[in-house]
Amino acid sequence: MANPARMSINQATTREQHSLAQAIAAYAQAGVPGISIWRDKLAESGLSDAVRMVADHGLQVSGLCRAGMFPATDAAARQACLDDNKKAVDEAAALKADCLIVVAGGLPEGSKDLPGARRMIRDGLGALLPHALAAGVPLAIEPLHPMYAGDRCAINTLSQALDLCDDLGKGVGVAVDVYHLWWDPDLQVQIKRAGDRILAFHVCDWLVPTTDLLLDRGMMGDGVIDIAKIREWVDGTGYDGLIEVEIFSAENWWKRPGDEVVRTCLQRFNETV
Amino acid sequence: MANPARMSINQATTREQHSLAQAIAAYAQAGVPGISIWRDKLAESGLSDAVRMVADHGLQVSGLCRAGMFPATDAAARQACLDDNKKAVDEAAALKADCLIVVAGGLPEGSKDLPGARRMIRDGLGALLPHALAAGVPLAIEPLHPMYAGDRCAINTLSQALDLCDDLGKGVGVAVDVYHLWWDPDLQVQIKRAGDRILAFHVCDWLVPTTDLLLDRGMMGDGVIDIAKIREWVDGTGYDGLIEVEIFSAENWWKRPGDEVVRTCLQRFNETV
Repeated sequence: MANPARMSINQATTREQHSLAQAIAAYAQAGVPGISIWRDKLAESGLSDAVRMVADHGLQVSGLCRAGMFPATDAAARQACLDDNKKAVDEAAALKADCLIVVAGGLPEGSKDLPGARRMIRDGLGALLPHALAAGVPLAIEPLHPMYAGDRCAINTLSQALDLCDDLGKGVGVAVDVYHLWWDPDLQVQIKRAGDRILAFHVCDWLVPTTDLLLDRGMMGDGVIDIAKIREWVDGTGYDGLIEVEIFSAENWWKRPGDEVVRTCLQRFNETV
Repeated sequence: MANPARMSINQATTREQHSLAQAIAAYAQAGVPGISIWRDKLAESGLSDAVRMVADHGLQVSGLCRAGMFPATDAAARQACLDDNKKAVDEAAALKADCLIVVAGGLPEGSKDLPGARRMIRDGLGALLPHALAAGVPLAIEPLHPMYAGDRCAINTLSQALDLCDDLGKGVGVAVDVYHLWWDPDLQVQIKRAGDRILAFHVCDWLVPTTDLLLDRGMMGDGVIDIAKIREWVDGTGYDGLIEVEIFSAENWWKRPGDEVVRTCLQRFNETV
């Protein structure tokens, strides 16, 4: 089992219960050493207050969510996206986040050109990278489940994400999330290929049945993913960073008291990760 | 655009509106030359009546749905599955179906062993194959979208399905369904690799947003799949068989009059496939 000293909670896991200040306090009080922060919650708190609160509670920021969403219908929209992504880099640097999570984006409005969207993703990452390198913020490309290829992320396998890393070079790595990748028959091979480019490792579970494409992720142990096996593969690359619990669960965990959710995350982390 | 003389409709597309007899009559009357039949509807009609009705209306059966569901927790269950699959082969032979669609099955109850389920699928296909070869019924392995890996089908890419074909040899091919495979960055390469092993080609569309994992497939043209492009790739292999419209749509197309659905299938086939 994974060392609980490596645990982080993505604040989306209690996003209905907690402001950023409340999440920081709740996770720290429960003894969770890490947090991953979302930019909408960060904007509510203000960056300088967030930086102070994280430091005051001695939390490590396993990631900032998120940059990306590169494909767009015109150059002006792509430039606006780049500007916002640069701001995300600066926020990640201020928070001393381990990485900036990149969710690449799907098809532009009205388009069916998936290869074209993938080229826009590559170009968008390439345009953002100098700023990220200068700020010392690693960009973590997170392949999302193929069910999000249309509207959220056209990078859908670890192999694709690593091809992008090969192409872009230093400063870019991957986020491995069991929810998105567990089904892939090539996963073990690709995790090994990733080597030291794994910048983040996310856990939750795949429920059977899953009732919603976006907001029905399961607590570790409630689904069918062999999480410990994938964690072993990731550890086998030498990854010794935080392991982040990220659960979007509109009808279950978001409706329970925040302290119950945090307590359950801790318990299940110890039992199943 | 594809020749409408190649069109088939999978009867699941009007399953709430039509018995098998009604579907046969409606499709034939609309000038659709093919039908794909489901075994539950077949059982209601009886095999001999179904054979007669299909012949009377001059329809070609593009496929029988379905065999498979191989993984199981014990040997008795696997034997019962094999017996039922053999019966499906016999039904497909009686209907002169172009192929028997194989949906491989997911994880056995309580299991998280995906590689183990995949081995059971291979073994199940191997056990069924001699009977299928003797009956002259090609087995079409249909890779299903990765979102079904847990509960329906652990074969989730065309590459995986073709690896199984390589392993099993003569008598086994693949069903290419745009809904399951459109996102795959390796799809063009794998379709080319498939060559003459493509036994069926299924079309519908991926809606954005998709509101249900199982029953929210879109009518061709209503979603984001570049169907004509994938059809060109499939045609490029020399495939000249039927092109089957298969739409599971509980909240939309299943609630409309059957003749409207059939008419729309024909129109969209001509416009987008």
